[in-house]
Amino acid sequence: MSTATKTFEHVGTRPIRHDGLDKVTGRANYGADYALPGMLHGYVVRSPHAHARIVSIDTSAAEAMAGVKAVVTGSDIPKTNAKLVMGEAALDLGAMGDNALAHDKALYEGHAVAAVAATSPEIASAAAEAIRVVYEPLQPVMNVDQALAPDALILHDGMVTKGRPKPDAPTRTNVALRMELTRGDLDKGFAGADVVIERTFTTPMVHQGYIEPHACVARWGEDGQVVVWTSTQGHFVVRDCCAGILGIDAARIKVIPSEIGGGFGGKIPVYLEPVAIALARKAHRPVKLVMSREDVFRASGPTSGTKIRVKLGAKKDGSFVAASASLYYEAGAYAGSPAGAGAMCAIAAYDIPNFLVEAYDIVVNRPKVAAYRAPGAPAAAFAVESVVDEVARRLGKDPIELRLQNAVREGDQAAYGPEFGPIGLREVLEAARCHPHWKAPLVPQPGRKVGRGVACGFWFNAGLNSSATVSLSADGSANVVTGNPDIGGTRVAQALMVSEELGIPVERVRPIVADTDSIGYNDVTGGSRVCYATGMAVIEAARDAQAQLRARAAKIWDVPVEQVGWERGRAIALNGASGREPLTVSELAAKLMHTGGPIIGSATVNAPMAGPAFGAHICDLEVDEDTGVSRVVRYTVVQDVGKAVHPSYVEGQMQGGASQGIGWALNEEYVYDAEGHLQNPGFLDYRMPVASDLPMIDTVIIEVANPLHPYGVRGVGEVPIVPPLAAVANAMHDATRVRFTALPLSPPRVLAALKQRG
Amino acid sequence: MSTATKTFEHVGTRPIRHDGLDKVTGRANYGADYALPGMLHGYVVRSPHAHARIVSIDTSAAEAMAGVKAVVTGSDIPKTNAKLVMGEAALDLGAMGDNALAHDKALYEGHAVAAVAATSPEIASAAAEAIRVVYEPLQPVMNVDQALAPDALILHDGMVTKGRPKPDAPTRTNVALRMELTRGDLDKGFAGADVVIERTFTTPMVHQGYIEPHACVARWGEDGQVVVWTSTQGHFVVRDCCAGILGIDAARIKVIPSEIGGGFGGKIPVYLEPVAIALARKAHRPVKLVMSREDVFRASGPTSGTKIRVKLGAKKDGSFVAASASLYYEAGAYAGSPAGAGAMCAIAAYDIPNFLVEAYDIVVNRPKVAAYRAPGAPAAAFAVESVVDEVARRLGKDPIELRLQNAVREGDQAAYGPEFGPIGLREVLEAARCHPHWKAPLVPQPGRKVGRGVACGFWFNAGLNSSATVSLSADGSANVVTGNPDIGGTRVAQALMVSEELGIPVERVRPIVADTDSIGYNDVTGGSRVCYATGMAVIEAARDAQAQLRARAAKIWDVPVEQVGWERGRAIALNGASGREPLTVSELAAKLMHTGGPIIGSATVNAPMAGPAFGAHICDLEVDEDTGVSRVVRYTVVQDVGKAVHPSYVEGQMQGGASQGIGWALNEEYVYDAEGHLQNPGFLDYRMPVASDLPMIDTVIIEVANPLHPYGVRGVGEVPIVPPLAAVANAMHDATRVRFTALPLSPPRVLAALKQRG
Repeated sequence: MSTATKTFEHVGTRPIRHDGLDKVTGRANYGADYALPGMLHGYVVRSPHAHARIVSIDTSAAEAMAGVKAVVTGSDIPKTNAKLVMGEAALDLGAMGDNALAHDKALYEGHAVAAVAATSPEIASAAAEAIRVVYEPLQPVMNVDQALAPDALILHDGMVTKGRPKPDAPTRTNVALRMELTRGDLDKGFAGADVVIERTFTTPMVHQGYIEPHACVARWGEDGQVVVWTSTQGHFVVRDCCAGILGIDAARIKVIPSEIGGGFGGKIPVYLEPVAIALARKAHRPVKLVMSREDVFRASGPTSGTKIRVKLGAKKDGSFVAASASLYYEAGAYAGSPAGAGAMCAIAAYDIPNFLVEAYDIVVNRPKVAAYRAPGAPAAAFAVESVVDEVARRLGKDPIELRLQNAVREGDQAAYGPEFGPIGLREVLEAARCHPHWKAPLVPQPGRKVGRGVACGFWFNAGLNSSATVSLSADGSANVVTGNPDIGGTRVAQALMVSEELGIPVERVRPIVADTDSIGYNDVTGGSRVCYATGMAVIEAARDAQAQLRARAAKIWDVPVEQVGWERGRAIALNGASGREPLTVSELAAKLMHTGGPIIGSATVNAPMAGPAFGAHICDLEVDEDTGVSRVVRYTVVQDVGKAVHPSYVEGQMQGGASQGIGWALNEEYVYDAEGHLQNPGFLDYRMPVASDLPMIDTVIIEVANPLHPYGVRGVGEVPIVPPLAAVANAMHDATRVRFTALPLSPPRVLAALKQRG
Repeated sequence: MSTATKTFEHVGTRPIRHDGLDKVTGRANYGADYALPGMLHGYVVRSPHAHARIVSIDTSAAEAMAGVKAVVTGSDIPKTNAKLVMGEAALDLGAMGDNALAHDKALYEGHAVAAVAATSPEIASAAAEAIRVVYEPLQPVMNVDQALAPDALILHDGMVTKGRPKPDAPTRTNVALRMELTRGDLDKGFAGADVVIERTFTTPMVHQGYIEPHACVARWGEDGQVVVWTSTQGHFVVRDCCAGILGIDAARIKVIPSEIGGGFGGKIPVYLEPVAIALARKAHRPVKLVMSREDVFRASGPTSGTKIRVKLGAKKDGSFVAASASLYYEAGAYAGSPAGAGAMCAIAAYDIPNFLVEAYDIVVNRPKVAAYRAPGAPAAAFAVESVVDEVARRLGKDPIELRLQNAVREGDQAAYGPEFGPIGLREVLEAARCHPHWKAPLVPQPGRKVGRGVACGFWFNAGLNSSATVSLSADGSANVVTGNPDIGGTRVAQALMVSEELGIPVERVRPIVADTDSIGYNDVTGGSRVCYATGMAVIEAARDAQAQLRARAAKIWDVPVEQVGWERGRAIALNGASGREPLTVSELAAKLMHTGGPIIGSATVNAPMAGPAFGAHICDLEVDEDTGVSRVVRYTVVQDVGKAVHPSYVEGQMQGGASQGIGWALNEEYVYDAEGHLQNPGFLDYRMPVASDLPMIDTVIIEVANPLHPYGVRGVGEVPIVPPLAAVANAMHDATRVRFTALPLSPPRVLAALKQRG
């Protein structure tokens, strides 16, 4: 379904991505694929304690070992109060530096406390063993309840609750932030409700689970010039973070992005890079650092475990009248959970006259959380969409009808503030309602129960800053250069945009991800912003090139440029200049050097707003009530993407988000013991869904054009991870009549609940 | 001396070049420094005959060897008539392909006839030995006299003399081109002369002598995408040449330039690249090819050996009244000597009312010549400036005075066609005349003779096509991206231009040489065009960025952009907006993300004209008459460069050009035996001057601003190789009273001449 009126020639087709063959043949270079002459291998020493004061670190034995060229500790990372502003957010570089190498305390099991660089990985690891760290272990604070207990140990002395703390909040606290959204009169709202449902939900800390562990190589030149090769979602941010953390002029750091084997938000922060730079500076040689899978689980960006209370009131006719929600998010060791984003997304899909949503960002002795695909939203949606489901059942209403009845529409003020422009929630819900999946009978396999659930999800999508250049070659081909690592197929999407604007076949457009020295600033690949915001820069740069091409045609025809138009890759003569045969881009390109030289178009964008987007997922779940094992047997993702520039990769994003959400719903969780030791830091025990665990996920692309983007693009990557937690849990309820409020719906938990149900 | 009125803050300073430390510490990567996983090593089989028909090539034994993955011959390079247009010139891609791998005939000793790729260099070389080539040797044609002989063997059947062949020219010919420049009435001119000198000169074929041999790695992707890493003066031209030679779409080829260890024009053509691509395509693996020093001498671009007849007539008062010149240039195996450029430069320095200059491009069984620093001009200047010197002596005139008397000036029509704009020949000659060197007494060492010579030189300097982008970072630093390999310090020159326009310290400007996919088209680094033409693109791109910065300042001040000026790196408030404190580029940059996002400036130039430039050299030469050994004991280069952006590297170019010219004058030459076998393909026997052979070369920079360039730049790299051949020979005459008409002035030749003199 598409509301777009614009017709496209290239956009919307499905060519093979330019980086595809390199990636499937192993030719692409990832973070660990770089090597430099004389390069050393690093090894990071990590805390065995979840919470401990660092009394002393003796590196002398390690430093004395043959082949060891440098050892660094927290003392090599200056303490800083510097912040790095990214759109509305600000990265705390002090915390990021302390996370890279602890200064005073180890705040989670796996927290880096020292690192060594040596001539071989074996020597480096042996030297790491020889580093003597004396710890004073402290009681770990492992979850929000422990963190909020009156006698809780305080992770960071002097932490002050930012935002809008409650008046009676304690002064010594693990709460980094409290925020609040409110509208109307909550008491009056609930008083007018015929049905009120209130429940408290929990979701586990889960990891993004990217295939490629963090890896980088750093070179410190004797002239003070630093080069870093790394797998990242944003090399400009790596540059600026390393500069801020180490107190180096950012102008002296060049960051070259490798291909990236998954990120999902988890490759925005820096972990290894400042350490590798510090080691390289000491060793006078390049240093490579690569995380093991255990390191990735223990010390890189999971997303918050949460506890969320939701109360929703509705009238008999189904209209929502009041809602309240309290969201408690584990930040990990440093402030910065996505609690705020979770709160802003929680009831974004619904028009509710009275509400109060509050969110708490709470530090605990777990790894510092990083962004993970629609950060904060899936847990909030799990809670809210479970309660909406329950309201529908209580009122005997079709759950899609109930959502349609309360769905926000253009002109409504979003719960999180602004007024919605054209949005596609209703179109999405209507498409879900009409989908064969929603109408298909549920037929369980013998001995199994089967249920169907539905849920909605919302994400803002981000804008931010992007730069692009488009250069034309004399052979009529073109380059498009940006600075966003390609995670989800953005190279080919950008190439398609150039094709659309200039009429060049997409395989003759070369999309390039340039290093920090070779293109203007680009914010990270994240927030579903690249196809949207960087895409806008690409389109503008291509139009700049197109304007120059029209000027060349005017020169060839000897007419004013106003008499030259552009249509389907050709300069055409407008009134006054008619009778001239159109000139194709190839014809114009062949004449470039005789009409004024090469052509480069360039453009930058600063997109403070993006395209809010909604999805609805339908899940059929089959449960073996004897074992508690469940399996998704049919799954449909319906989503408004604004405009699908490359539908295959849009569908891939929708399927990927759903898959990750299903894993989160069914099996994934960080399992810690009471001392804060992670019990499952590997893919054997941390159970992510693999292809054989999932059915083919059906997708329905809805295109309600986003007026902020010339083609109507909204962004696609994040919305699809928002509904699955609730969709799966709602299907589980449909199958078992048990309302699960805690994830994951792993076999032991399901079995226990079924036993309790009887 | 400077006629420029503009004052500069950054341009004209002498910061360390950005690539300096990398290069002196060995960190920079040159052509042979690349390696890819699975890469094969190639070896080229070369003809032992200077002229031979290729009867058959049997590659079966080589192909059967373990470790051999591919063998290619001329049959893998399609024959083509394609041309690649470069400014006024056109590269003959058919000849370039036949030169890369011979199809039917071997045209010089060292001509590539086959190539092999194997898992090690040793296997590759053994396999090359196993390739059986059956030749039918032919009589080699080794110089212009042999080539023009009535019974000369014809190298290329069907060659037709292009240009303006003489009416009685034979139809079967080795003359590829004859061109002619004429003005006035030659007979009448000479009839009015009081002195007429006519002499015939020869210069040997010499090599550019770059330190780094040709080297490349090529990868042929199974998707047909080709990547080439290579040491080149122009990666865009490598791309387009390889595409044309192999019949591949240029849009599928990406060329990544390495650092370049010297080129001087000799790294413009492709030799190894098409062969490496053909091998990689057959082997399905990347292939590296590296020339040995012998290969470089035998099969890569020397410059023409020449035979030049010059006749000059002057009146008693010194004024030149008539000149004629016939220039015969060896092209090597394929058409394309710089005879035409030599003819255009020959008398460019002088205002002569009557002249006829003709030039012949003649094929011989020697390696195809390539460009070499001011191609064609040094030999022409050797002839003309020797005759001018003789006229001065005959008339008893000071040789600088005589030149000043006849020097061209602004408004004169150049002998080669256009009208001169502001030029610096008179300023150069006056500076030479005033220089202490010209007035210093000549004091020979005991047992030696000493003499002083002076000579002028001219070069057009080139414009052509360039692209540049300038991006600003939030930290107030900037990138400047172009596509010209940096041979002579152009990175720092470009960075200085950005500093000048934006007020950013040069060490915070990062100059990047981007690959063919990452920046718009750039013609080769050559013709002394980069600082001039690419520099113009850089200045324009910086001004584009500056205009955007002024718009940001206007936004911050809330005034119309017309009320914002720019001065010394700061936005200043103009009338109407006064009272506001200036905003520095750093202050503006820090606010970028809140005033509209990143900034990229971009620009392209198509500069059909450049800045004609002149130099005058003074040489003191000491000769040991017992041995014939001579030595330059003092040397001064005076040159109009328009504007020296980085005076140190401008001086370096002037010194480097003079050094190469001195080597050409004194010792360098290709020595062939009668069968066309090169006798001295190595630096032991091919005698180039090293530092200990030369005095410190003094330099005088003259700056007569070139009105075509915003800073007045003309270009510097080529002019300084033009005068030395004549300056040295004139000094030799001054010392010995022998007029040498043949170079080099090697000890045996000098000794023989002195014996003849008696």
